[in-house]
Amino acid sequence: MEFKRIIDENRETYMAELFEVLRQESISAEGRGIPECAELMAGKLKSAGIEDVEIIETEYNPVVCGEYHVSDDAKTMLIYGHYDVQPPDPLEEWVSPPFEPTIRDGRVYARGAGDNKGQIMAQILAVKTYIEAEGSLPINVKFVIEGEEETGSPNLPAFVEQHKEKLETDLVYTSDGPMLADGHPVVLLGVRGLLYVELTARGSQFDNHSGNKGNIARNPAWELMNLLSTMKDDNGRVLIEGFYDNVLPPTEKELELIDRLPFDLDDVSRNIGDDSIEFTKADYYRALCFEPTFNIAGFTSGYGGEGAKTIIPAEAKVKMDMRLVMDQDPDEIFERLRNHVEKHAPDVEVEKLGIMQPSRTSSELEFIEPIRRSAEKSFGREAFIQPSLGGSLPDAVWTKILGVPSVVVPYANIDEANHSPNENLVVEHFYKGIETTCRVISEIGELDQGYSI
Amino acid sequence: MEFKRIIDENRETYMAELFEVLRQESISAEGRGIPECAELMAGKLKSAGIEDVEIIETEYNPVVCGEYHVSDDAKTMLIYGHYDVQPPDPLEEWVSPPFEPTIRDGRVYARGAGDNKGQIMAQILAVKTYIEAEGSLPINVKFVIEGEEETGSPNLPAFVEQHKEKLETDLVYTSDGPMLADGHPVVLLGVRGLLYVELTARGSQFDNHSGNKGNIARNPAWELMNLLSTMKDDNGRVLIEGFYDNVLPPTEKELELIDRLPFDLDDVSRNIGDDSIEFTKADYYRALCFEPTFNIAGFTSGYGGEGAKTIIPAEAKVKMDMRLVMDQDPDEIFERLRNHVEKHAPDVEVEKLGIMQPSRTSSELEFIEPIRRSAEKSFGREAFIQPSLGGSLPDAVWTKILGVPSVVVPYANIDEANHSPNENLVVEHFYKGIETTCRVISEIGELDQGYSI
Repeated sequence: MEFKRIIDENRETYMAELFEVLRQESISAEGRGIPECAELMAGKLKSAGIEDVEIIETEYNPVVCGEYHVSDDAKTMLIYGHYDVQPPDPLEEWVSPPFEPTIRDGRVYARGAGDNKGQIMAQILAVKTYIEAEGSLPINVKFVIEGEEETGSPNLPAFVEQHKEKLETDLVYTSDGPMLADGHPVVLLGVRGLLYVELTARGSQFDNHSGNKGNIARNPAWELMNLLSTMKDDNGRVLIEGFYDNVLPPTEKELELIDRLPFDLDDVSRNIGDDSIEFTKADYYRALCFEPTFNIAGFTSGYGGEGAKTIIPAEAKVKMDMRLVMDQDPDEIFERLRNHVEKHAPDVEVEKLGIMQPSRTSSELEFIEPIRRSAEKSFGREAFIQPSLGGSLPDAVWTKILGVPSVVVPYANIDEANHSPNENLVVEHFYKGIETTCRVISEIGELDQGYSI
Repeated sequence: MEFKRIIDENRETYMAELFEVLRQESISAEGRGIPECAELMAGKLKSAGIEDVEIIETEYNPVVCGEYHVSDDAKTMLIYGHYDVQPPDPLEEWVSPPFEPTIRDGRVYARGAGDNKGQIMAQILAVKTYIEAEGSLPINVKFVIEGEEETGSPNLPAFVEQHKEKLETDLVYTSDGPMLADGHPVVLLGVRGLLYVELTARGSQFDNHSGNKGNIARNPAWELMNLLSTMKDDNGRVLIEGFYDNVLPPTEKELELIDRLPFDLDDVSRNIGDDSIEFTKADYYRALCFEPTFNIAGFTSGYGGEGAKTIIPAEAKVKMDMRLVMDQDPDEIFERLRNHVEKHAPDVEVEKLGIMQPSRTSSELEFIEPIRRSAEKSFGREAFIQPSLGGSLPDAVWTKILGVPSVVVPYANIDEANHSPNENLVVEHFYKGIETTCRVISEIGELDQGYSI
């Protein structure tokens, strides 16, 4: 295992490279440090031995691309990641400043340590390690490192559509998000999609006195609530016509995978902050991987301060997100929602704030087991395969636009606190991540050339 | 009409007295200027010729009392008002500073101009005028001027209970609130009561990620909404058991009064800021005077800012106010509400933030017509009788604790903007208010001594 020796020899320099990237602010929501960080990532790709590096402009933030080409006959793996980070506020809750990476108790603390700089750097440094160990890679590797993931990847679908040929690959490999509890690695075969909407009910032009106008002025909070109650029954089933039409049932194989996954209800409860929940393993993973959500992310109307204020609110707003499963189409669900509102409360305004397609890669593909094995060996903990992430990633740009399989293999610890203060990455996860990508490159390289993934 | 001459001669000095009171801040919500204003009011009572003036301390703000005693055989009228005002913010929206009274276009602009300093001063100056005109009053007059009306009169019920004997009277007369549209005076025979509650549903200890925890973490916004949907049907009828049990139907006489009231749907629409509402006169006044409300004053859960945030909120809160009609008891309704919640959503927390009893004085009492006539003559516009105010005032301390009839006769213009920036009182309303109270004193004095009101 030559690459393990190289990693061990370079622990300090690899960490120094990560620190350099973490020090560079790159907050996409606020447009801070974006071009500087793109330049830095391009430099990291070059210094890893990747010859063909390009910074490609999009409507907003540039995409950093790189390609290491071995031969037209070799397999190609595309590695996806992002160089942008979430805003760091509330700043006062950070123990050390978010853009001054600091190691405490075996963890790197910094914004982006886990999400996603630590993980994409592990992938870049894996390529560097492999080349140093073996003189070359056994497969073609491409990199797509975007700068808008934290704002919903609005330009990524168009980018992939435009560069289909350039991005041609056999497989997309992403390392993002946290591992399972107890440090178990997991290979995720897809993500739930997303439809984010805002519904607004308007009553009068201004808030009215609830006494002198009470029973006279319309109350939009009640109107919106009445509308919402037509959308979901008491058991949580969505009543919008056709909502479940395209929901695919899990396959036998997928149910088998779920059955093998680890599950600890106490862990789940602690993670959620609610010890009253009860789930069997099967119900838990089915609810997360195969069932859509219909969530209220925010409801705002009238007075929300201390004590009493006696008004009839002028307006009521609800923000909802639906995590959609295969084969639900966010745009189609939006139309069905709009029709439902049109029928039950035509005055309520419906706005689409964002969509992301669900994505799924078949559990039958034979390269999945070698990838699982790579993570298991590197992390020294049993690794699992989960049919879908509960959350959303722009994974469908690969599976639907590019038409290739895609897997997500998180290297970050479960308590990485991404999007929160004191984001962190366990130091050893960084090095084990590098090792995992090395093993994956090696395993894919060893796949029979005649074998089609 | 000797008193009319006195008013005309003293226009400037009376206005100067009002200005002096308006200049004195007395914001009960912020505890500013309260004792100073109580002293000032006591001085105004004394200078009006009322011998027996007292400032009586309560748990919070003192009550200013005064008594002009003619004879034990004479009728007694108690005049109620308040010297505290609402906070003046937003300050930047005032054309002239709130505590520097200014006359523009025939109106006095100042915080408290209408609510209630201008109106209670009109009453005090009426006593002064009458004594100057006639040498004495024909009836006993008592004053109760409290300093907590703008924070819900929390100590007034106990104060009245404690001083029942001192406050003994045949009738309570209040001038507060605005007149009808087009400057028509109105004699209000009661008020709706109030029950203000806050319901809180809690899910997890913290907001959860709507993807990774979606379908797993409980959503308190949905839970609270499901609960609310069990409380009211689509037609607005409240489904809480026993809610309507003690609602008194309007009497024949009250329906007749409603029938005589002026009504202009365009006026109502403009006032409410909604041109889509439709009411007949009868429905409008019945909804306002005889039907309880079940209002959502605020609903707050999760994210209410710009754009999208994908969370499952930890908490959902609804603030509700119910305007209760005769003979609904706010404490009893609260218990019924609590039972309902206990049955449908036992985890939801219920808090009582405030109550006020409904109040009603019989429309059959024979002194009501003389009062109506007094306002009509003074303002030179047809005056009406309305069975109840849509809003709430601590009127029940008189009708229920003291057990005497009580009427409210507003002197302020309909657009007085009380509780808002640029609060104002039409200058002529101030003088016509003084005239009205003079006439009322005269009319009550002329009632046959043997006649019991």
